[in-house]
Amino acid sequence: MLETLKTAVWEANMALPRYGLVTFTWGNVSARDHETGHILIKPSGVDYEALKPGDIVVLDKEGRVIEGSLRPSSDTPTHLALYARYPDLGGIVHSHSPQATSWAQAERAIPLYGTTHADYFFGPVPCARLLTQEEIATDYEHNTGLVIIETLDNLGINPMHTPGALCAKHGSFTWGKDAAQAVYHAVVLEEVARMATLTETINPSVKPAPEALRDKHFYRKHGPDAYYGQG
Amino acid sequence: MLETLKTAVWEANMALPRYGLVTFTWGNVSARDHETGHILIKPSGVDYEALKPGDIVVLDKEGRVIEGSLRPSSDTPTHLALYARYPDLGGIVHSHSPQATSWAQAERAIPLYGTTHADYFFGPVPCARLLTQEEIATDYEHNTGLVIIETLDNLGINPMHTPGALCAKHGSFTWGKDAAQAVYHAVVLEEVARMATLTETINPSVKPAPEALRDKHFYRKHGPDAYYGQG
Amino acid sequence: MLETLKTAVWEANMALPRYGLVTFTWGNVSARDHETGHILIKPSGVDYEALKPGDIVVLDKEGRVIEGSLRPSSDTPTHLALYARYPDLGGIVHSHSPQATSWAQAERAIPLYGTTHADYFFGPVPCARLLTQEEIATDYEHNTGLVIIETLDNLGINPMHTPGALCAKHGSFTWGKDAAQAVYHAVVLEEVARMATLTETINPSVKPAPEALRDKHFYRKHGPDAYYGQG
Amino acid sequence: MLETLKTAVWEANMALPRYGLVTFTWGNVSARDHETGHILIKPSGVDYEALKPGDIVVLDKEGRVIEGSLRPSSDTPTHLALYARYPDLGGIVHSHSPQATSWAQAERAIPLYGTTHADYFFGPVPCARLLTQEEIATDYEHNTGLVIIETLDNLGINPMHTPGALCAKHGSFTWGKDAAQAVYHAVVLEEVARMATLTETINPSVKPAPEALRDKHFYRKHGPDAYYGQG
Repeated sequence: MLETLKTAVWEANMALPRYGLVTFTWGNVSARDHETGHILIKPSGVDYEALKPGDIVVLDKEGRVIEGSLRPSSDTPTHLALYARYPDLGGIVHSHSPQATSWAQAERAIPLYGTTHADYFFGPVPCARLLTQEEIATDYEHNTGLVIIETLDNLGINPMHTPGALCAKHGSFTWGKDAAQAVYHAVVLEEVARMATLTETINPSVKPAPEALRDKHFYRKHGPDAYYGQG
Repeated sequence: MLETLKTAVWEANMALPRYGLVTFTWGNVSARDHETGHILIKPSGVDYEALKPGDIVVLDKEGRVIEGSLRPSSDTPTHLALYARYPDLGGIVHSHSPQATSWAQAERAIPLYGTTHADYFFGPVPCARLLTQEEIATDYEHNTGLVIIETLDNLGINPMHTPGALCAKHGSFTWGKDAAQAVYHAVVLEEVARMATLTETINPSVKPAPEALRDKHFYRKHGPDAYYGQG
Repeated sequence: MLETLKTAVWEANMALPRYGLVTFTWGNVSARDHETGHILIKPSGVDYEALKPGDIVVLDKEGRVIEGSLRPSSDTPTHLALYARYPDLGGIVHSHSPQATSWAQAERAIPLYGTTHADYFFGPVPCARLLTQEEIATDYEHNTGLVIIETLDNLGINPMHTPGALCAKHGSFTWGKDAAQAVYHAVVLEEVARMATLTETINPSVKPAPEALRDKHFYRKHGPDAYYGQG
Repeated sequence: MLETLKTAVWEANMALPRYGLVTFTWGNVSARDHETGHILIKPSGVDYEALKPGDIVVLDKEGRVIEGSLRPSSDTPTHLALYARYPDLGGIVHSHSPQATSWAQAERAIPLYGTTHADYFFGPVPCARLLTQEEIATDYEHNTGLVIIETLDNLGINPMHTPGALCAKHGSFTWGKDAAQAVYHAVVLEEVARMATLTETINPSVKPAPEALRDKHFYRKHGPDAYYGQG
């Protein structure tokens, strides 16, 4: 079932090592079929070199395996929590890509330092707080999803305008309207993180970009008055 | 029309990802036909993998499309402003290459720290100021060109001796006698930016290279007494 | 003899340059045959491009050559000392990979800054002290093994839970149940080292990850209740 | 004439871009034929992609072209000065490789922070002083050679034990018994420079490696008691 989407999820997963975002099995991509609500996700701990489209696991929205002989990613409950809360999400990426993960380990949001960032993220990339000991002990992966949602809620962030977040001491999640766009945003995040670190090295007292520049770049690519691209 | 130049502009665009200067569609190259004054430029938001020579858009110097079925790059008005002011320019590159863009985000000119820099840029690579809210709101891309010109004017810079500039919080523009040379200068800029960051990390109180060394290296490659290369 | 293991050791050695862990001949991998106690190791100073499975040297546990026409790696006594002390080790890697070696040169243990680290190393990656002048003068390579053991002993470290250590001013050793896993841990160490440096650059007052998060990630991959992977 | 050596010099030149040491034409390799004293060197400003063995220029030791239709590298007088002073040199590399050049731009010698360095350089990699305005104005490239010699003399350095030096605000020269070994040392220098920068970032108060460790590593690879490699 859902063979076309299965292939798209497989392709999105295969793109992670090609873009230098994952070492070994440290990442996964999922997608949602909007009609049935089913979630398709990478199986846990399978090498990218060995991964085949048929290995992609199909789950219902409660996370029960509907199709596939392999265990889904151990991060599945995080994906499910995000899909449940945000109906517009069609794809999610989890990765330990080095530049973004270093900001997560540093427990800092990535400031909006320039137009490369503003073209895709309408504000800083937020960093969710550490989980409590209790949240770690029980339903860790589900709670990882909840703390991302809590972070976006507290900051009043529209997830379709800021398509990603860092998890303190862990890694990043990015998302989009489908799996391919979620991967695209993971690549953007890694580049934005790399440049933010360099920017602060070059000028330790640097300030974020002004709001007018952020708005200009975000809205020339997104929304009703966008004029970037072929329309 | 202008098929040879169209191919040259296509090749120059394709060189950007090959040199690691662009991710996705974050860059563009244009060239001017000196005889007609026409400008040839990459279409907006087209993937490099899909770009074909026939996709290059031909414009007159006021920016009206003369040939081509795609929208020109959204940065076209910046290119046009630079061509209008500097009659010797034959090619321009815009890029978000990470090392140079980090200096732009840090809002600092790149000091001339060594002969690699002096071989191609006769002084620091300047960083144009942020645009005002008004300049962003109306004719943003045209004003980006004007602020580069303002910066070169204020510093008394000859654009053929300092073939590039940074735009605060944005990215870089480089140029040259043709599209290929503009790409060459974009590669030089990225290397020079990378080494300048490292240089300040290694020695936070480092000083720029002396003028005598700058002059020696610049003029052994450029001008009537040049003796580098095969003459 | 031991042709299958010889091929595995050759493959593990060939993986080092492929993962970017060695320049020229700066690294070596060994394995132990648990039945005979024999050690198989790369020959000294042989280029990876020229290395063949038949070049792998077979030694008894005292280090006498049993098979092979080439001299074993000059680091062999370090490998032997570790195998002698830790009966569970089946493979060892020595490398001068740049990120981990820079921590060794800085004489600092790598703090546990995140889950990528905790997935494989149950605590900081320790850094062994400098050898004394006497330890360098006589049996240098053997003493290098002893000082790693001393370090793990002093810190109460289980080598199967913290599968690697840095040697002050030198490089790293990693290990595992076999040669392939030792290489895997060398790749992890390099990534963890890279991110630790970036993490401290981004936030100079960063703190290590809490123990609860370390435990969660380590034990979801290792031990009786592990649920990562396909079981 | 000297066709075998010409091919070796061509191969050594071609190795520079393969090892990531040069961008465009920013580097050159020469070799000396010990019998005739002739010097073979890359022609000036020729792209590596276009370079052929027959393009290598043959000079006598005073620098007069004996064979070849192209101009020799503009850095030829530096090479000649070093060959004239050091009879054991058989090959020299000049490069602007980013890590080493950043130390040159920072005007700092590279401290001996570990065994990777000590395996090939018996002490810090020295940094020659800036040339005076007079030395730049007249015979710049020849004076670049003289200031390297002055530096080694002042520090009592044996060039066969410390096979390279930095030139303030410029780049590096490395050398060896032949062109291939000079390239090998250029690769070592770049790695050593990369790790020295990282080492100081990780530990700003780091100290150089002790002399006993330097001696151990240098002499296990070099001299009558060497035991590294296949003898």
